[in-house]
Amino acid sequence: MSKFQFLLEPRSIAVVGVSDDAARPGSQAVRALMRNGYQGRIFPVNPKYQEFQGLKCYASVQAIDEDVDLVVIGVPAKGVIPVMRECAAKSVPYVTVFSGGFRESGPEGVEREKELLDIARGAGIRVIGPNCLGFASIPSNVYAAFGSITRDPKLEPGNVSLVTQSGGFGYSIALACAEAKIGFRHVVATGNESDIDTVEMIDALIDDPETRCIVAYIEGTRDGRALLRVGRRALAAGKPVLLWKGGVTEQGARAAASHTASMTGSYDFYRALYKQTGIVEIGELHEVVDYLKAFAPGKQPQGNAVAVMGVSGGSAIVFADAGERRGLTLSALTEATQERLAPVVPSIGAIHNPIDLTAGYFSEHNKDKLEVALRAVLDDDQVGSLCVNLATTGPGGSAVAAEVIARVSNHYSKPIVVFSSTPVAANAEALDIFSQARIPVLPSPSRAAHALAVLWAYGRARERIVGAALAEPAAELDTDARAALRAGRALSEMESKAVLSKAGVPVTKDLLVRGDERADLAGLSYPAVVKVVSRDIPHKSEVGGVKVNLASAEAVASAIGQIRESVARLAPAAAIDGMMVSEMVTEGFELIAGVVNDVVFGPVVMVGAGGIYAEILKDVSFRLAPFDERTALEMLDELRCRPIFDGARGGATLDVASAARALAALSRFGWAVRDEVQEIDVNPLFLSSRGVVAADALVVPKARPGRGAA
Amino acid sequence: MSKFQFLLEPRSIAVVGVSDDAARPGSQAVRALMRNGYQGRIFPVNPKYQEFQGLKCYASVQAIDEDVDLVVIGVPAKGVIPVMRECAAKSVPYVTVFSGGFRESGPEGVEREKELLDIARGAGIRVIGPNCLGFASIPSNVYAAFGSITRDPKLEPGNVSLVTQSGGFGYSIALACAEAKIGFRHVVATGNESDIDTVEMIDALIDDPETRCIVAYIEGTRDGRALLRVGRRALAAGKPVLLWKGGVTEQGARAAASHTASMTGSYDFYRALYKQTGIVEIGELHEVVDYLKAFAPGKQPQGNAVAVMGVSGGSAIVFADAGERRGLTLSALTEATQERLAPVVPSIGAIHNPIDLTAGYFSEHNKDKLEVALRAVLDDDQVGSLCVNLATTGPGGSAVAAEVIARVSNHYSKPIVVFSSTPVAANAEALDIFSQARIPVLPSPSRAAHALAVLWAYGRARERIVGAALAEPAAELDTDARAALRAGRALSEMESKAVLSKAGVPVTKDLLVRGDERADLAGLSYPAVVKVVSRDIPHKSEVGGVKVNLASAEAVASAIGQIRESVARLAPAAAIDGMMVSEMVTEGFELIAGVVNDVVFGPVVMVGAGGIYAEILKDVSFRLAPFDERTALEMLDELRCRPIFDGARGGATLDVASAARALAALSRFGWAVRDEVQEIDVNPLFLSSRGVVAADALVVPKARPGRGAA
Repeated sequence: MSKFQFLLEPRSIAVVGVSDDAARPGSQAVRALMRNGYQGRIFPVNPKYQEFQGLKCYASVQAIDEDVDLVVIGVPAKGVIPVMRECAAKSVPYVTVFSGGFRESGPEGVEREKELLDIARGAGIRVIGPNCLGFASIPSNVYAAFGSITRDPKLEPGNVSLVTQSGGFGYSIALACAEAKIGFRHVVATGNESDIDTVEMIDALIDDPETRCIVAYIEGTRDGRALLRVGRRALAAGKPVLLWKGGVTEQGARAAASHTASMTGSYDFYRALYKQTGIVEIGELHEVVDYLKAFAPGKQPQGNAVAVMGVSGGSAIVFADAGERRGLTLSALTEATQERLAPVVPSIGAIHNPIDLTAGYFSEHNKDKLEVALRAVLDDDQVGSLCVNLATTGPGGSAVAAEVIARVSNHYSKPIVVFSSTPVAANAEALDIFSQARIPVLPSPSRAAHALAVLWAYGRARERIVGAALAEPAAELDTDARAALRAGRALSEMESKAVLSKAGVPVTKDLLVRGDERADLAGLSYPAVVKVVSRDIPHKSEVGGVKVNLASAEAVASAIGQIRESVARLAPAAAIDGMMVSEMVTEGFELIAGVVNDVVFGPVVMVGAGGIYAEILKDVSFRLAPFDERTALEMLDELRCRPIFDGARGGATLDVASAARALAALSRFGWAVRDEVQEIDVNPLFLSSRGVVAADALVVPKARPGRGAA
Repeated sequence: MSKFQFLLEPRSIAVVGVSDDAARPGSQAVRALMRNGYQGRIFPVNPKYQEFQGLKCYASVQAIDEDVDLVVIGVPAKGVIPVMRECAAKSVPYVTVFSGGFRESGPEGVEREKELLDIARGAGIRVIGPNCLGFASIPSNVYAAFGSITRDPKLEPGNVSLVTQSGGFGYSIALACAEAKIGFRHVVATGNESDIDTVEMIDALIDDPETRCIVAYIEGTRDGRALLRVGRRALAAGKPVLLWKGGVTEQGARAAASHTASMTGSYDFYRALYKQTGIVEIGELHEVVDYLKAFAPGKQPQGNAVAVMGVSGGSAIVFADAGERRGLTLSALTEATQERLAPVVPSIGAIHNPIDLTAGYFSEHNKDKLEVALRAVLDDDQVGSLCVNLATTGPGGSAVAAEVIARVSNHYSKPIVVFSSTPVAANAEALDIFSQARIPVLPSPSRAAHALAVLWAYGRARERIVGAALAEPAAELDTDARAALRAGRALSEMESKAVLSKAGVPVTKDLLVRGDERADLAGLSYPAVVKVVSRDIPHKSEVGGVKVNLASAEAVASAIGQIRESVARLAPAAAIDGMMVSEMVTEGFELIAGVVNDVVFGPVVMVGAGGIYAEILKDVSFRLAPFDERTALEMLDELRCRPIFDGARGGATLDVASAARALAALSRFGWAVRDEVQEIDVNPLFLSSRGVVAADALVVPKARPGRGAA
C-alpha cells in the first residue's frame, strides 16, 4: 500500500473532541486505540483538559508539538470548520470527520460541507467523511472510529478490506464475517464522501499487498466510470471485489436519498458494470461470507461442470437445482473414473454424478477408499470443481473426511467446497482442519453451489475482460453535426442516420430530394418511403407528410407531389428542406438500440426486442460504452428473444454477428461524442439473415450549462 | 391427532434386526428409545439373542406375547418380506421399513416393493418406507429411526412437524431449525413412500392439535390433486405448510430420478399449486428457520405496508430493496403519527418511514421514548407490520430494546420482526426476551423483509382461498364428442370450438357448408375464412384448402369453389365433410390458452402471450383446474404482457374480465372432461376491447390403456 498508507496506518493520531463522557465519539476512538495497543502517538485535543486517559491533552491541533499524520474530528458540526483550519495551518495530511450535520442535513449542511472541502483542497488535506463512523486498520490496531467497531467482539486481522458508505450496515457485514472467522485488514466507513469516496478507496486497496479481497457497500457513486476502471483494475490484479449496492429498487432508492443523499443510479447500469468488470454482486449478508470463503484458496474451477459426492441424495438434488440456476452443470464422469470409483463406493451407492457414497460412509474405516474416490473424481478432466456433501455426518466422521479432503486438496488446483449440517459447536475438529486447508464449508447445498458458481463466473470474467482488445477509436462527428449538437439542436433523421452510418451502423439508404426538379432516384431499391423534411413539422404524419410502400420511381414521384400539396395546405408556414426518400425494410426481426449519456455512468448502450415488447416486456440489455463485438454478442445473448435469432420456430437464422458489429460501433460512437450527445435512439433496427439495418435514428444533444435540454 | 396416533405415538414397538453391532439401524433405534426414555414397551427381535440391551429379545414378531402397535424392520432387503408376513399374521397395525433394496434399486426391488405392499394391503397394515430413516416423535421420545436423529444434539420438543422424502436432507433442515431453538413434534422420513406418502402424512398432521406448522421436503408426488386438497385444508386450518420441492430444474430432476425414483412433476405446476393453496415455497435452509419464526406468534400483517424503525439507515435501505421485490411497501405515516414521533426521535433522525432513531438510541435512557415511538407507529392504520433494526446495537442496548418491544408487542396484533447483527453468543439476554415474546429476530434486513412478506402473502392466500366459491359445474360433453374422444379421435377444429363454446368459451362463428348447394351464409360477419373439413387432410394449406380475408358472401362462394377444385386435384382420394366458413378476427391482442391433463396434477390450465412470444419468451401462467374468475384474473395479472391489456402505449383497454370468464370456463370444462381429454389448445385467443374470442381450438383425447396416444 502506498497511496493512503499514512492515512490508514498513521504514525500519529490527534483526536479532537474527547471528553469524560465515554460515549462521545472522540472518547470512544482514544479508548479503542489505547485498549487495542495502537503503537503510534495519540494526541487527545480538548482545551478543557490537561490530561485524558493518562495522555497529555492538547488545547488545539496547532498546540501539538509533533507531526500529526491523521486528525480525527468528533466535535459537533459547527465546530468542525475551525478545526479544519487548524489542520490546514499545521499541514496535516489526513482528516476523518465523524460529525453529522453536513450535506445529509439540508442547505446549511451543504454549505458547511462545501466549506470543509474548500479548506481541505486548499491545504492538500485528504478527508474521510463527514457523517461517518471512521475507519480501523485491524492488524495495526488503528481505530479512527467510534461505534460498534470499537467494541467487542474485536475483529481478527486478515486479508479482507471493507469499504462502506453506511458505517452501521457495513459493520453488520463485518460482524457476519467475523462470526465465520474471516479476518480483516482495513475497515473504512466513508459516510458523505465529501473527498475520498468508496471508489478511490477501493483503488488504493488494490495496491495494498495485504488486501486479497475487497468488500464494499455503497448507496451511490458520483462517478460510475471510475468504478468501471477500478473494477477492471481489481480484476486484472486478481483481487475480487464484492459489491453490495443498496437502493436498487424504487423504495430502496428513496430511502437511500434521505440517508446519504447519494445519487443511487440505475440498477440496470450497475448490473452492466458488474458484467464488464467481474465485480461480484452481493444482495445478502451470508453471500459476503460464503464468497469470501470461496475466494480464499485462490483456486479457479476448470469449467462449469461440477462433481457432487456425498452421503445425502437430497443434498445433491438441492445442489443441482441451485447450480443449474447459476450456470453450473453436473459433469459426466468418464468410464475410467467410474471404474476407479466402483471398488470404493458401496454397491447400493452410485458411481455416476452425483456420486452416492451411501449413509455413514465418512468413517475411519473408509479413509483410504475416500481418498481413492476423491482422487478419481478430481483427476477427471470433465470435472471442473467438486462439492462434498457431508450433510448430517457426525463430528467423528466429519473430522475423518476433513483430514482426507484436506490432504487430497493440496494436490489439486480444482476448488473443493463442503456442505455440512453438523452443528458448528460440536464440529470444531473438522472445521479446524478445513479452515487450515482453506476449504470452504457451507451450511447448505445451495450455498455451496452458489459459491462455486461465483468462482466460476469470476474466472470467466477474468478470461473475457483482462487483456481483451479495447474498442477501436470511433469515427468523429463531422463538423456540421458537431456544430448543430453544440448549438443544442437535435439532428434530423437523415443527419442522424448519416453520422451513424459513418460510425459503422448500417442504415437504410436515404436520398434528399430538394426543389421542384424530378427526383434522381437511381440506385434506390423498392419499396420506398417518402417523408417531408422540415424542422417546423414535428409530427409528419399529421400533415400528410409520410407515404410508405411505394413500389417504383413513379410512385415515389407521385407521392412527393401529394406530400407537397398536403403540407402546403396543412402547414403553410413550414420551411421545407426537401423530401427524404428511403428504402423500406420489408424483412427482419425488429430490434431497438440506443445510447443514453448517464450522469453517473456516461454513455450506456441499450439493445432490446423492438416494437411493443421493448417497453412492455423489458427484454433489454445494457453495457457501458465503449465495448467490443464480443461484449455486444453477450448483450444479444442475454435477450429473452435470443432463440428467434437462431431460427426458432422455423424462421431464418439471423445475422447476429452484424448486429454485434453495429452495437460495438454504436458504443464507440456514443463514447466519442459523449461531450455533445445526450441520447441516441436507433428504432427500429431490423435484423435479418442478410444483416442489420437501422430504419430510423435520432441523435439528441446534451443540455448546455445555462440552458434547458433541446 | 387421531388417524396415525398409534403409528406416531405407539404404545409398544418391536424392532426387528437388532445386533451387537451398535451401528446397525435396528440397534440404533432401540438404543435411542431407551436413552431418551420412551415410555412404551420395547421388543427387540433377533432369534440369535435372548436379551438385548437388558431387554428380553424375541425370536420373531409372532413370538411377542403382547400387542404391538409398531414394528420397525431393519433387516436386509431379502429378509423384509418374511417379517412382513409375520406382522400380517400378528395383525400389527403399523410398520416402518428402514431397509433399502426396493423400488430405488432396479427391477428386482420393484417386485419386492410390490410384494411388501400386497402383504400390507391384504392385512390392513400401514407402512412407512421402505428405504427410509424412519421417524421420531420428540415430545413422547419415540425413535423409530436410525441415523442423525438418534444422535446428539437431541431435538427439543415443540410444535413443528417435519415430513421428508429424503431422511438425510430432511435432517439437515431439522438441525438448522434446532440451532435456532425451534422445537419439533413429529419428524417423519417417508423414503420410497410405498404406502403412506408425504401428502397423507401432512393430512394427518393437520389434525394433530400439537402441530402448528408443517415443513416438508419432497422430490415428487404421485398425486398432485391430493396435495392441492391437503394444502387447502391446512390453509383453512391455519397451519402453514412450508414445502421444499427438490428436483425443480432439469439436472435436479435427473438427480432426483436416481435418488427416490420419484416423478418430479413440472415445477410450473407446483408453483401454480402454491398459489392456489397458500403453501409456502422453500428453496433454502434458512428460509425454513426464518418463516417458522415468523409464523410462531400467529400474527398477520394488516396489509403490505411496513414501517421500519432503527439505528442504521443502510439496513432500512436493504430492507426496502428486499421488501419491494416481494410485494411490500414502506407505509406512509400519518401526520398524527409523525407528531407523536417528533418529541421522542432526535432531531438529526427522521420521523418519516424509514424512521431513523439515530445511532446509539437503544439505551436505558431512551426506554420511555422508544415505547412512545413503537406505539405511535403501531397505532397508525397505514402500518401493517413493523421491522425494528437493532443492527449492531450491543447486548446492553439490545436487552433494553427487547424488553420494550416485547411489552409493546403484547398490546398489538400487528407482527413485529427484529433485525440484529449482535453476535448470538453475546446476546443471550435480549434473545431470551424476544424468544419469550415470540418476536422473530432475523440476522439480516433482507431476511426480516422476506419473513414479513411471507406472512403477508400467507394472510392474503387465506383471504383469497378459504371459503372462496368453488367453481360451478361445467357443461358436459355432448354424446358425439364424448364418443369420439373415447374412441381416441381428436375433435376437429369445428367440433372443438363447438364444445368449448357450449362450455362458455367464446369462439368465432363457424358454419359448415356441405354438398354442392350454395352456402347459406346469413348472419355471418366479414371478413371470413374458408377451410376444407376432412379427416384425410392433415395440412389443409398444402392442398389449397384455406382461403382467408373474404369480404363478402360472393367471395366466400367463390373461395369454396376454388378450394373444391384444388383439393380435388391435389388430394383426390380425400373424403370431404364440407367447408367450414368462419368469421375472421381482425382485432385484439393474441393470447394462447390451453389445458393439459398432467399425470400428477390432472387438468392444468395455461394462458400466455400468443404468437412467437408464448414459446420464445415463455410469458405464461398456470393454475390447476377448476378455478374461479378471480383466480383467472390473477393468472392474467402475472403475464409480463399485462400492461398491454390496460392500454399501454396508447392502445385500447382490453376486456380482461371476459378473458377471465373464458379461462374459468375452460378450467371447469377441462376438469369435467378429465377422463376423456388429454389436451385442449385454444390458439389463438384474441382479446380486444369488445371481449375475447377463440379463433381456433383442438381437443385431444386421452390415450386409452392398451393403446398409444391418438
